[in-house]
Amino acid sequence: MSAVERPNEYVVPETMKAWVLGGPDQLSLEEKPVPEPGPAEVLVRIDAIAVCATDLEIISHGPPALIQGGLPFNKGFTPGHEYMGTVVKLGPAVDEFQPGDRVTVEIHAGCGRCERCREGMYTACLNYGMNYGDKNKGHRANGFTTDGGFAEYAVNNINTLVHVPDDMSDEEATLVVTAGTAMYGLDVMGGLIAGQSVVVMGPGPIGLMGVAVAKAMGAQPVILTGTRDARLEKGTALGADHVVNVRQEDAVEAVKRITGGKGVHYVLECSGAPNALNDAAQMVNRGGRICLAAFPSEPVPVDIAHLVRNNIYVFGIRGEGKSATHRAAAFMTQKRFDAKIIHTHTFPLDQVPTALKYARERIEDAIKVVVKMKPAEAMAAE
Amino acid sequence: MSAVERPNEYVVPETMKAWVLGGPDQLSLEEKPVPEPGPAEVLVRIDAIAVCATDLEIISHGPPALIQGGLPFNKGFTPGHEYMGTVVKLGPAVDEFQPGDRVTVEIHAGCGRCERCREGMYTACLNYGMNYGDKNKGHRANGFTTDGGFAEYAVNNINTLVHVPDDMSDEEATLVVTAGTAMYGLDVMGGLIAGQSVVVMGPGPIGLMGVAVAKAMGAQPVILTGTRDARLEKGTALGADHVVNVRQEDAVEAVKRITGGKGVHYVLECSGAPNALNDAAQMVNRGGRICLAAFPSEPVPVDIAHLVRNNIYVFGIRGEGKSATHRAAAFMTQKRFDAKIIHTHTFPLDQVPTALKYARERIEDAIKVVVKMKPAEAMAAE
Amino acid sequence: MSAVERPNEYVVPETMKAWVLGGPDQLSLEEKPVPEPGPAEVLVRIDAIAVCATDLEIISHGPPALIQGGLPFNKGFTPGHEYMGTVVKLGPAVDEFQPGDRVTVEIHAGCGRCERCREGMYTACLNYGMNYGDKNKGHRANGFTTDGGFAEYAVNNINTLVHVPDDMSDEEATLVVTAGTAMYGLDVMGGLIAGQSVVVMGPGPIGLMGVAVAKAMGAQPVILTGTRDARLEKGTALGADHVVNVRQEDAVEAVKRITGGKGVHYVLECSGAPNALNDAAQMVNRGGRICLAAFPSEPVPVDIAHLVRNNIYVFGIRGEGKSATHRAAAFMTQKRFDAKIIHTHTFPLDQVPTALKYARERIEDAIKVVVKMKPAEAMAAE
Amino acid sequence: MSAVERPNEYVVPETMKAWVLGGPDQLSLEEKPVPEPGPAEVLVRIDAIAVCATDLEIISHGPPALIQGGLPFNKGFTPGHEYMGTVVKLGPAVDEFQPGDRVTVEIHAGCGRCERCREGMYTACLNYGMNYGDKNKGHRANGFTTDGGFAEYAVNNINTLVHVPDDMSDEEATLVVTAGTAMYGLDVMGGLIAGQSVVVMGPGPIGLMGVAVAKAMGAQPVILTGTRDARLEKGTALGADHVVNVRQEDAVEAVKRITGGKGVHYVLECSGAPNALNDAAQMVNRGGRICLAAFPSEPVPVDIAHLVRNNIYVFGIRGEGKSATHRAAAFMTQKRFDAKIIHTHTFPLDQVPTALKYARERIEDAIKVVVKMKPAEAMAAE
Repeated sequence: MSAVERPNEYVVPETMKAWVLGGPDQLSLEEKPVPEPGPAEVLVRIDAIAVCATDLEIISHGPPALIQGGLPFNKGFTPGHEYMGTVVKLGPAVDEFQPGDRVTVEIHAGCGRCERCREGMYTACLNYGMNYGDKNKGHRANGFTTDGGFAEYAVNNINTLVHVPDDMSDEEATLVVTAGTAMYGLDVMGGLIAGQSVVVMGPGPIGLMGVAVAKAMGAQPVILTGTRDARLEKGTALGADHVVNVRQEDAVEAVKRITGGKGVHYVLECSGAPNALNDAAQMVNRGGRICLAAFPSEPVPVDIAHLVRNNIYVFGIRGEGKSATHRAAAFMTQKRFDAKIIHTHTFPLDQVPTALKYARERIEDAIKVVVKMKPAEAMAAE
Repeated sequence: MSAVERPNEYVVPETMKAWVLGGPDQLSLEEKPVPEPGPAEVLVRIDAIAVCATDLEIISHGPPALIQGGLPFNKGFTPGHEYMGTVVKLGPAVDEFQPGDRVTVEIHAGCGRCERCREGMYTACLNYGMNYGDKNKGHRANGFTTDGGFAEYAVNNINTLVHVPDDMSDEEATLVVTAGTAMYGLDVMGGLIAGQSVVVMGPGPIGLMGVAVAKAMGAQPVILTGTRDARLEKGTALGADHVVNVRQEDAVEAVKRITGGKGVHYVLECSGAPNALNDAAQMVNRGGRICLAAFPSEPVPVDIAHLVRNNIYVFGIRGEGKSATHRAAAFMTQKRFDAKIIHTHTFPLDQVPTALKYARERIEDAIKVVVKMKPAEAMAAE
Repeated sequence: MSAVERPNEYVVPETMKAWVLGGPDQLSLEEKPVPEPGPAEVLVRIDAIAVCATDLEIISHGPPALIQGGLPFNKGFTPGHEYMGTVVKLGPAVDEFQPGDRVTVEIHAGCGRCERCREGMYTACLNYGMNYGDKNKGHRANGFTTDGGFAEYAVNNINTLVHVPDDMSDEEATLVVTAGTAMYGLDVMGGLIAGQSVVVMGPGPIGLMGVAVAKAMGAQPVILTGTRDARLEKGTALGADHVVNVRQEDAVEAVKRITGGKGVHYVLECSGAPNALNDAAQMVNRGGRICLAAFPSEPVPVDIAHLVRNNIYVFGIRGEGKSATHRAAAFMTQKRFDAKIIHTHTFPLDQVPTALKYARERIEDAIKVVVKMKPAEAMAAE
Repeated sequence: MSAVERPNEYVVPETMKAWVLGGPDQLSLEEKPVPEPGPAEVLVRIDAIAVCATDLEIISHGPPALIQGGLPFNKGFTPGHEYMGTVVKLGPAVDEFQPGDRVTVEIHAGCGRCERCREGMYTACLNYGMNYGDKNKGHRANGFTTDGGFAEYAVNNINTLVHVPDDMSDEEATLVVTAGTAMYGLDVMGGLIAGQSVVVMGPGPIGLMGVAVAKAMGAQPVILTGTRDARLEKGTALGADHVVNVRQEDAVEAVKRITGGKGVHYVLECSGAPNALNDAAQMVNRGGRICLAAFPSEPVPVDIAHLVRNNIYVFGIRGEGKSATHRAAAFMTQKRFDAKIIHTHTFPLDQVPTALKYARERIEDAIKVVVKMKPAEAMAAE
């Protein structure tokens, strides 16, 4: 389908540059062997990678869901999961992709052998983290439990790959998995949301993509709540019908006002605020549904009685299951929304620490900070 | 199908005896007009009614979900919802039932005109409580928002009726809706639970019926947790593979021990204990599901992060939707379990206050207290 | 939300003009009483109505699904079901709509009391056609089993009403139910079709709206098959990525070619061609799904073995269930596609026979022929 | 959970006896190397295997669904798929099973990398048959596309293994997959069938297990149709509420009679009769569902209009997906029905041709013919 010619053979070096995690918050740029793709795997040359808040968490504290294998410190681990790139080498019997294919990646490759994977819930794989030595069940979570993308190359299970069209930039392609996570949240709540009312709480990257995806699916109205006007404006640009600055108006009151007292059908909670679940429960109508894509760090008081009395369902999600990333990529390919709006900064590979700092401290109101492997001039000369 | 002959015409008096709620906790036995069935309704002569904990709550505080119409005090309201009886009069165009049919009843008749009813979620009807004057949207909840069964007769929408076979006693038939509520809880979590592991928390009537229904559906193992050995023994008699007295062993530890560390697929929470949701979340495996059929009266601390990180779904339910009562009745008709085990006491209609007292104070370890309209001798002579 | 002022009181005459069906194919314009809305009903002043192929069938042969009540001939029946208009009078306790509301209508109002209605499948109501005399179960199918819209006024259950925004023309609004039927077909097959491949067979009104809705939902590619280039061009205008004239290329071969041999995920069959099901089964991949929204008039040979060996699911649908019409209306309100493309001709009420003739004989390549109650000049002067 | 002690180490020989398919219908008992289990696989010592009609088909004509790789003749292929046995060797990183575990097997192990496997539909794997050379995508279908069980040993993906309790005989354990296929058929139609009416057409092994499983799930009534009284009597013994000999009464009429004219909710079609789908469509009520687990060898006339007008869904299934085999095994472990009723004959391994002849020609009214590896005396002496 593409008119762009690409080489079908790539010279892959034996070693590569990769950021390696020593102790907590200790990253160094090192030379590591380029990994070899096994069955159902390919080697991806990384072209760009975005920074996610979870990366910062992993680098400081280790991945929350890393059940087996302990903490990742001082094990030569390379973090980073929101990357895209070019297929440069195929594992045995792989013909689903070809060298030269531009791809972006999902995080999770399930083991394929546990009950959850067998029912298609691969992001809830029961062998999460089991990918080492004689416990290698085949689960992979890029940059969580297996090496990630702050490096020149990474091995990926083909289940995690999504094709990127030629007219989508590297930077935009790194955002597919974020949009896919938001879409998964909408899907687990039911998915058929054209004409239905949706609140998205929290204008971080997943929340903002949630607005865009909900709108692309036809939701009406889409209401975004948050604390910062600059972020809410991004939401408006991505399709929010209403934005509510919760510093100026009570979010529940605002939703009641906008919906004529009825409340909404769905809430996608992406803020992690302590009272978010209670607020969401007050926003939905009887029989409404709430998806939790974020969480407060400590236990918080929850009015369980309200959930039960109003027949409310609450879906905790982790990641981007049910191939939602492919559906999100389809919307982005069709240019239904401009994901690039949330891309704010770009750095080269050797400035990963700076990129992380921008993301962590929201310097210059950073939303999505992208690390691009090749300077623009180099790419132009290629 | 029945060999028992019954009259097909009944003489219905103009007035009847009915318990009427004055102020909170003030019940008096009064003479009221026998109501007239409208379209899609029948008149049921009540033969027996069980006492539910919610009745006690309503009599003291009003129904928690009575959104419209305010509190039920001093409005001539008759409480009681777990009743069964005999169809004695048909509304216009009703031919789904005949006079003489023995029936037990669900609580909820949805309005049939809101979004939830249109999608089959009638227990989450958006017109809950709207059944009066010029706001009559047709919603009915027996003994919650419309007159209930501590009386000689009650009108019922045909949607709430379930046939009772001849060889099921009146007392047992009052338990169908309890079993139906438990079954609904299992259904919303997925329903296909043969060979799957289930914890039921709380050996009250719904919890005990939950054990019975889960086992009838083939769940394995079924684990019941509670604080009183006498109740847990009832659970064993109803099919629990394991019972855990949480005064003697930590419930989460016990579940881990029984399941070899794996946790269970489903938890049906019927205890309303303050830490029940957190415990349930520790009991299920990644991707597991929890149904909340009970709740603590106050907000309680909940570890939301654990729900999200482990992709756990939580379903609040209110009542017995999706025709689950019919499925529960089918199991009881087929004698898959002996629901009568939880029936402990019987009183005549004029002793409703005593019946309520037994249920409230669990006198003589009362579980299900039934009020039977006609003394056994009268029925024998009929 | 609307800035257009409308009267909130309407003078409703006692009689109206309505087309009445005598014997087969005998329509006459008569004076009939204006019907009175009952509970959960409103009176709609009809502003426009489109002609559907099923209207032609009903006028000639009676409705295929009219189980009870026999054929509609010589009973004073008024056909027509794809209409829109203005609410002019409310039944008792109706506050969901107000006089002056512009609405378009679904066909089916389920009885609300059968098993199918209770589970939300109201288009498969088990009391289909039961709306007369002492068998009045409340089912209504506009223009099928109850009076329809080739008239000045019609009563409608509020469940069948969909709001129409001010900037949608009367003519376009008559097409909502057609788009809703197509959407329902996509929904029963799964609904989450962004990035999935869809074939629509047959470029009639439902098929063309199927293309538009599939594309709005993000399907990719959408392939339309048919026999006439003019119709296929409409499909392209509505978003089809590929069109196949089956007179020039075998449809199955074409789909294989376009999909690189893989076949598609879904087929929406709207042609009624004798070999359509077999072709569809060859077009989908293993595990694929087919929705039948049309059918040949006679039994046809079907290769059942192929369906079984390839794990194919086939969904017969009748009408526009699961509130799909609301979702279709949302897309049209958001101007995701231009449904007006399929509107080709307009006639006034007194020319209904001409309108039917145009539709039946496809005069001037008619697709959707609309009958408009008020001449444009009258409306302008209003 | 078992008190039976078993060795945890087994001496596995280098070669084994195995029946090998030469040309069509040419089987010879040969000496083959014992295969080696790879990752996610175990070696199973086969203890018993049942003959399925599909085995006869494969031996004569090759597997219908063997898309890749061509026909299996003269390739050293060993047929047979309904086997059970003992785990004797583990592949790398396998700890889900231990040597000595008694297991029965499903047929299909999906590739785990195609769209269908990713959504949990592994029996509809898009890489069906791809398990050889440089096209090894990992799909396995025991005895269809990979070596099966008419041999002393077979390699199995752990996804296909189901534990067998000590008190279930080898012969009974071979029937689990048959019961699992029937259960899968009920599941795809909705699964919550307690109190719902079900017709099973065709009293072959899958049909008879369909009766048993439907009854275990609480269906009421379960109606079995067939042509031979002896088979129908087996159905009665397995729980059918009604049996209909279609040589004596029209099946559709009989179903109408039994259901008081209403028809049934579900039909599980296991007969493959030419008019079965049309009959099934007349048996179900509006909105009813039909599962096709069998098929006629040639295309047959189908009244598609009836399917569409009545909103009927038809599900073709191939095999035993969604872990239905585990649910069926749970019911059998709980002794909900006596599957052994359909086991009629037993032969030793060297008499496989005789076993096949009994099954093919239904000698002595054979239903399930089992090949048992070890004579009873040898097992007793073990």
